[in-house]
Amino acid sequence: MTRKELFELIAQKQSFLCVGLDADIAKLPKHLLKEEDPVFAFNKQIIDATLPYAVAYKPNVAFYESLGSKGLQSLEKTIAYLNQQPQKVFTIADAKRGDIGNTSTQYAKAFFCNADAKQNFDAVTVAPYMGEDSVTPFLQYPEHWVILLALTSNKGAFDFQFQRSEAGQPLFKCVLETSKKWGNADNMMYVVGATQAEMLGEIREIVPDNFLLIPGVGAQGGNLQSVAQHGMNKQCGLLVNASRSIIFAATDETFAEKAAEEAHRMQQEMKKLLEQYLE
Amino acid sequence: MTRKELFELIAQKQSFLCVGLDADIAKLPKHLLKEEDPVFAFNKQIIDATLPYAVAYKPNVAFYESLGSKGLQSLEKTIAYLNQQPQKVFTIADAKRGDIGNTSTQYAKAFFCNADAKQNFDAVTVAPYMGEDSVTPFLQYPEHWVILLALTSNKGAFDFQFQRSEAGQPLFKCVLETSKKWGNADNMMYVVGATQAEMLGEIREIVPDNFLLIPGVGAQGGNLQSVAQHGMNKQCGLLVNASRSIIFAATDETFAEKAAEEAHRMQQEMKKLLEQYLE
Repeated sequence: MTRKELFELIAQKQSFLCVGLDADIAKLPKHLLKEEDPVFAFNKQIIDATLPYAVAYKPNVAFYESLGSKGLQSLEKTIAYLNQQPQKVFTIADAKRGDIGNTSTQYAKAFFCNADAKQNFDAVTVAPYMGEDSVTPFLQYPEHWVILLALTSNKGAFDFQFQRSEAGQPLFKCVLETSKKWGNADNMMYVVGATQAEMLGEIREIVPDNFLLIPGVGAQGGNLQSVAQHGMNKQCGLLVNASRSIIFAATDETFAEKAAEEAHRMQQEMKKLLEQYLE
Repeated sequence: MTRKELFELIAQKQSFLCVGLDADIAKLPKHLLKEEDPVFAFNKQIIDATLPYAVAYKPNVAFYESLGSKGLQSLEKTIAYLNQQPQKVFTIADAKRGDIGNTSTQYAKAFFCNADAKQNFDAVTVAPYMGEDSVTPFLQYPEHWVILLALTSNKGAFDFQFQRSEAGQPLFKCVLETSKKWGNADNMMYVVGATQAEMLGEIREIVPDNFLLIPGVGAQGGNLQSVAQHGMNKQCGLLVNASRSIIFAATDETFAEKAAEEAHRMQQEMKKLLEQYLE
């Protein structure tokens, strides 16, 4: 999906919501466990319920890998189901990959054009620690995206990401400055945790045009108003992810209905923020 | 596997060789492509041929993921085959994972005790960018190991890993200093590229007892003598990985024989180095 198409989708749905499909099998509604593939059954109902309000879906690959090859099959069915919707949505493999060049080339294949043609995501999250040649293999696929970790939403973000260089610049800013030379606003996005919303203004000075994927609204405590105020640009430039607060809004037979309600509530808030802050 | 058991294995085999099972399907000997599972057929023959000379095996997960769920099945068969050998070897999932706490918990399950009980590795490689809570979930499994990226062997290592802090310390040293408080020499190892062998002395000052996993000897140009001289400790403390130089030593029907020859050559060199440098 191109940046233009993504912005058109946002404008049409009046939403920049990404639904995180972190389908933890231990938290699934009990009545689904009798299904042949409980994880896919859950995802399918969540997608059906939230599709009017979301522009993107982000399965967190860890929750599938922990179930072995059966889990990967659930993931493949999920991405196939998303890709067969009449209106395209933006799909993100939240995988936090990154390795030496010849290995990142294999990860890019895995998520963008794998052998079974069953895992064709629009984007994949990548960790920056190993530098340029760990990232650029993902940039060889037109209309596909790297979403590079810059400033994450967890407590551990404070261990290294704020470490200041001799020039006084925190590591996450060095990552932004350096990596923006590897790609451009048409093939790179950045992860910036909503718990760090006060940093968004400074981040926008470095990467004014790139989309930012913002986790941490909801269960992790970030604030949507503040994210939009400091982070929105001319093409919205934001994908705000919510996982647990939507998909586990209820864990009984009403889960899909409650997920729709929560997604709708967020979409309504986003609609107002788009009216207020879209430049 | 405990540190004591690993050292006993090294002492017995007079080897600290780790064979990297980067079974790139595009490079497999042509005659194997008619097998039902060419990747597993290849790995099985490589393992049989190199087992007298190696103490550890390290499948790089990317090469399996790029083949979809079939690739994951090849990986599961490979790890099962390694785990059923009469003499235990040390197994490493080279996966470079790392995410927020609740997600790293899922990755730890994936590699240490997954639902199918088919992927029980001794160790997994983890990226440090997201800090403490991205690493500690892997440390909850006794006799299992995190191998944290410190200083990698690729060109991109120079983008961020050498960035100096205000106190003048490069990032990779901050990673060593900070992370050694999260675990200990019985559950944490570090990746240090052989291309950076001259840094091993300084690294040993920070982490004298931890095992180091050293990639980059062979295809990437690192020097085994220099690695042993600067990196070996009282319990050897080194696992030196070679991938392409062993598994693709030949790509015709003699591949397993040539892999054995190259592994044997490295083991002989390691035997001399153990005699020379083991404290």
